[in-house]
Amino acid sequence: MRSFASDNYAGVHPDIMDAIVKANHDHMPSYGVDPISTEAQQLFRDHFGKDAKIFFIATGTAANTLILKHLTRSWNSVICSECAHITVDECGSCEAIAGIKLIHAQTINGKLSVEAIDPILSGRLDVHQSQPAVISITQNTELGTLYSINEIKEICAYAHSKGLYVHMDGARIANACAALNVSLKEMTVDCGVDALSFGGTKNGCMCAEAAVFINPELGVNFEFVRKQGMQLISKMRYVGAQFKALLSNDLWLRNAQHSNRMAALLAETAGKINGVTITQKVEANGVFAIIPEEVTIKLQEKFPFYVWDESTGEVRWMTSWSTTNEDINEFCFSLQDLMK
Amino acid sequence: MRSFASDNYAGVHPDIMDAIVKANHDHMPSYGVDPISTEAQQLFRDHFGKDAKIFFIATGTAANTLILKHLTRSWNSVICSECAHITVDECGSCEAIAGIKLIHAQTINGKLSVEAIDPILSGRLDVHQSQPAVISITQNTELGTLYSINEIKEICAYAHSKGLYVHMDGARIANACAALNVSLKEMTVDCGVDALSFGGTKNGCMCAEAAVFINPELGVNFEFVRKQGMQLISKMRYVGAQFKALLSNDLWLRNAQHSNRMAALLAETAGKINGVTITQKVEANGVFAIIPEEVTIKLQEKFPFYVWDESTGEVRWMTSWSTTNEDINEFCFSLQDLMK
Amino acid sequence: MRSFASDNYAGVHPDIMDAIVKANHDHMPSYGVDPISTEAQQLFRDHFGKDAKIFFIATGTAANTLILKHLTRSWNSVICSECAHITVDECGSCEAIAGIKLIHAQTINGKLSVEAIDPILSGRLDVHQSQPAVISITQNTELGTLYSINEIKEICAYAHSKGLYVHMDGARIANACAALNVSLKEMTVDCGVDALSFGGTKNGCMCAEAAVFINPELGVNFEFVRKQGMQLISKMRYVGAQFKALLSNDLWLRNAQHSNRMAALLAETAGKINGVTITQKVEANGVFAIIPEEVTIKLQEKFPFYVWDESTGEVRWMTSWSTTNEDINEFCFSLQDLMK
Amino acid sequence: MRSFASDNYAGVHPDIMDAIVKANHDHMPSYGVDPISTEAQQLFRDHFGKDAKIFFIATGTAANTLILKHLTRSWNSVICSECAHITVDECGSCEAIAGIKLIHAQTINGKLSVEAIDPILSGRLDVHQSQPAVISITQNTELGTLYSINEIKEICAYAHSKGLYVHMDGARIANACAALNVSLKEMTVDCGVDALSFGGTKNGCMCAEAAVFINPELGVNFEFVRKQGMQLISKMRYVGAQFKALLSNDLWLRNAQHSNRMAALLAETAGKINGVTITQKVEANGVFAIIPEEVTIKLQEKFPFYVWDESTGEVRWMTSWSTTNEDINEFCFSLQDLMK
Repeated sequence: MRSFASDNYAGVHPDIMDAIVKANHDHMPSYGVDPISTEAQQLFRDHFGKDAKIFFIATGTAANTLILKHLTRSWNSVICSECAHITVDECGSCEAIAGIKLIHAQTINGKLSVEAIDPILSGRLDVHQSQPAVISITQNTELGTLYSINEIKEICAYAHSKGLYVHMDGARIANACAALNVSLKEMTVDCGVDALSFGGTKNGCMCAEAAVFINPELGVNFEFVRKQGMQLISKMRYVGAQFKALLSNDLWLRNAQHSNRMAALLAETAGKINGVTITQKVEANGVFAIIPEEVTIKLQEKFPFYVWDESTGEVRWMTSWSTTNEDINEFCFSLQDLMK
Repeated sequence: MRSFASDNYAGVHPDIMDAIVKANHDHMPSYGVDPISTEAQQLFRDHFGKDAKIFFIATGTAANTLILKHLTRSWNSVICSECAHITVDECGSCEAIAGIKLIHAQTINGKLSVEAIDPILSGRLDVHQSQPAVISITQNTELGTLYSINEIKEICAYAHSKGLYVHMDGARIANACAALNVSLKEMTVDCGVDALSFGGTKNGCMCAEAAVFINPELGVNFEFVRKQGMQLISKMRYVGAQFKALLSNDLWLRNAQHSNRMAALLAETAGKINGVTITQKVEANGVFAIIPEEVTIKLQEKFPFYVWDESTGEVRWMTSWSTTNEDINEFCFSLQDLMK
Repeated sequence: MRSFASDNYAGVHPDIMDAIVKANHDHMPSYGVDPISTEAQQLFRDHFGKDAKIFFIATGTAANTLILKHLTRSWNSVICSECAHITVDECGSCEAIAGIKLIHAQTINGKLSVEAIDPILSGRLDVHQSQPAVISITQNTELGTLYSINEIKEICAYAHSKGLYVHMDGARIANACAALNVSLKEMTVDCGVDALSFGGTKNGCMCAEAAVFINPELGVNFEFVRKQGMQLISKMRYVGAQFKALLSNDLWLRNAQHSNRMAALLAETAGKINGVTITQKVEANGVFAIIPEEVTIKLQEKFPFYVWDESTGEVRWMTSWSTTNEDINEFCFSLQDLMK
Repeated sequence: MRSFASDNYAGVHPDIMDAIVKANHDHMPSYGVDPISTEAQQLFRDHFGKDAKIFFIATGTAANTLILKHLTRSWNSVICSECAHITVDECGSCEAIAGIKLIHAQTINGKLSVEAIDPILSGRLDVHQSQPAVISITQNTELGTLYSINEIKEICAYAHSKGLYVHMDGARIANACAALNVSLKEMTVDCGVDALSFGGTKNGCMCAEAAVFINPELGVNFEFVRKQGMQLISKMRYVGAQFKALLSNDLWLRNAQHSNRMAALLAETAGKINGVTITQKVEANGVFAIIPEEVTIKLQEKFPFYVWDESTGEVRWMTSWSTTNEDINEFCFSLQDLMK
């Protein structure tokens, strides 16, 4: 099967699979204190600062929920976009597991802005109301759009001026770095981001996410939250091995560049087909397009992908590190055929 | 002090205070099995059905939070208005205490409608998303507006057709009944409401709220939720006494009729003052008006009340069972004086 | 009915009822900022220190649960006796509402000791284990026994040396002060207690408990926890009035002294009856005795009380501020009659 | 490194690693609906019944916590041993994540019995008390001991007669089956166990646990709890592949038989060394022994293992699927050398 449904339909990058296989020797301490995980954490610190606290975790939902739990007390809320993964796609984990109230700010193209957040913080905030403590942004966003470096800086400066922290859901942060041509450090540390959910799985890993506390004080005691949060994987060396491979030789960046390139190619090729409308600027590895419903149904039989908006017929096509030129050619060939 | 800030600035109605004092004799079983509480529960059942389950509780926040907790499992969400008390004014109790995700439907004048709810239930509802289980409406709403009987029926029928329950936050349900000239039964049971937060405190009680399960199956085991929810008052007879007085001789209705009448009088009198604009139709015991900011500031020194919308200068004046003609005359006299 | 079941079968002391009635005039700010509540808080600070933070609350379960929630993070546990009210009699509120793990230390006569606690803190405490943060003691205990001042001091000194806080469940602290002939300050502040659940209801109030943060830093932001915890009573003046009366003219102490005296008299009188065995030293307002089961059943018909231990036939008789000499005479007369 | 610290110091069995590598082709649906996971679930159903509901999960803590959450409402408690992993080694996950009160029954050798549970269920169970809903047993236990089939049957029959469910923490269930020479079905389905945490990781997998609802009705809606519980691994095919390999060709059983055999050999060989006392009957893959503290310290430098009881010098040696005869020979050789 070849799919444009999601970057997690892809398998594991061969370099990462090799690293997993190579880690499979001898006995090693469990629960994250093995030498491979230690080395992988060091690679993270090369990007996020020598004092950054790094915790490996199994799912992106866990990284988001547990970081936000750790940055809040029960009376605090988190400000996010109305289309944020944490509020739409995590089955109420923030509320049910962490007890957090999520407050939606109005967004344009899935992106928060100081203008959208300010009315929330300037409004009535008394004992009857949950007190915002964190602003959570997704880079790149759930709609495939990107915050510019300046936009992130502006949100961080504003948040800090109000005593709030900034969390970045970076499930696809590599794609964002590739698209903006900036380093992980420029995207986060230099902007003032306090904590990051770093996604490895969608970018070629098997099962590897990380909670990164760029502000190290905020990560104190998170080891308990991770354990209690059911995320302390016992044979952690295999997660460490994935990250070691991903962060070596710029694999994280090369994978992202590739998938972005494939998305651009897909948009370009498909966009030329009569009757296909590309609806969003293609900035990372997602392509949004409008095609007739009957074409969608037939095309999905060969290449799974999701309908984004049933009312308009807008569909979403995701590329990944494993998407090939052939995939795109065959997909577009089928699409063209069906559009006739 | 005389105030138009909130109906909970008022004291306790003399008949209710008498009932409290009269209950103060002898020893009685604690935790709600005393004869006075039993009698008061019977009075509730006269309104809400012979099988209705009634639980007395100390605060309106508790009634809302614990009922909604009882009607949901951890993966369920509750649909409400974006201005609902449960989402705006309870410091995140639903999220932090009950783990509930609240989903806002777009409302007009604070009122939900089937049209506003339907897109939520018709959208994607898969394992990644919290599953709506309850629709929560406030009667009369936080904006002082009223659902018509037909509007409530329509929401209940729709909810039940989709397998959802309907909860009514009735902190001011008496004012709503008085305004619409319907009985408590007509407002709830006959419409299909499943569970009700019945407010006594704002209507002349000292500290008396009730969780009412009109659908009795839904109230099974709620006694544990109340106890665990820290709401099982030990000397319950004094809450029972309040409700017994409130539900006798139509005191609940007379109090509400009075406060509604006072609001109408206030709107009429103040509305005639040059420069005062009454902004909302006065349906219950709240009056919304726009007056100059400097007038607001000076008037608040004598009569506390709240600014509702700082951007427009809109203020809210609440009346209560204890508001008198003299209160209104003096208030309007001062207002007129300041408006010059 | 006259009862020896619990001190919460008693009514409200007349001085307190008078205070409630007298508070019933005019409009006053709601949610605890009225002048009566402010005055009552000042009376608390006269006992617990000028910086102590005082929060009025409706139930003892709420005082315990919310204080402990505020003193812990999610990975913390609380050490208590296996017969503590928080673990036995609050329907899992600490676990379900506050997410707290309670760890039982072995107790003698319901009393914790450094010897019993130390093995818990000296054991393995790694990331796999909940980290103890608070020691919770009940004074007087659920078994009617008393910690001596020195015993409390020893526990507090030990706790602080280990970085833990001490919480006292003082549902019946007045009885303990009366029994030990010490002030509230000597019982708490001078011993090093950090936070106290102060019970008013069992000692003659209608519905009045308080969360007292003797260590004021620990009470910062508790106003949000109280509101979210569904305990911010709107017409708070009536709770304030109860406490104002209770803490004036040493009413709290006189009520406790009276009920202790009644318990002593009951133990003395009943203890002389042939076949009645008083099983515990009577230190406060509870009397434990063994009588034949058939006597218990018949006696309960006239005077409700609880069987404490079905296997031995041990029963518990509680006295209160309202117990009279006549009550005891009639009770002992009936008992003597049945024992024949 | 060779270690006797824990079976999770071992790597991944080669057959399982092969299966992971072989799963790495093409695109496949994410979130558990891929063909490999489907096949693996079928292999589970061959053991646990054709209607059993199977959910793959990343950690044993998650399997335990989320199953118990699903089997309870907020007012329910779970009865377990005082040495159960869920109460000792999961950092309060049951309490903090699932809100569950754990009630300890007295155990002998880490094993619950009807005699130990019955007093809990026969005691006072009113509205003030959390209501037991589940009995959780660990097979084999945290102390390396084993319930006999009859003991499990007796507990299940008792539980069901009282309206409770039985959960089995089977982190090492394979070792138990190997030791008792029974099938997975005989150990669980035939005994009446309702839900099982099935452990794959300790038995040769990389990261593979399963929540198994043998009683299928109990598993309804668990997919939401898993997602919300942050355990819905996106590239699930690699977990499926592990289980497919583990449950094929009796690999699960052969791995367990091997590690049990190694433990027996270790006990036999070490037990012959002068001064070494084997303290527990070796039934599965753990050996408990007492050796001098100075020997422990030196031996740990070469072969990591844990001290079980500091007061007695008792140590725990765990074997795994990967322990070899050479490992044991070298270990015993070093031990003998140090004992001189």
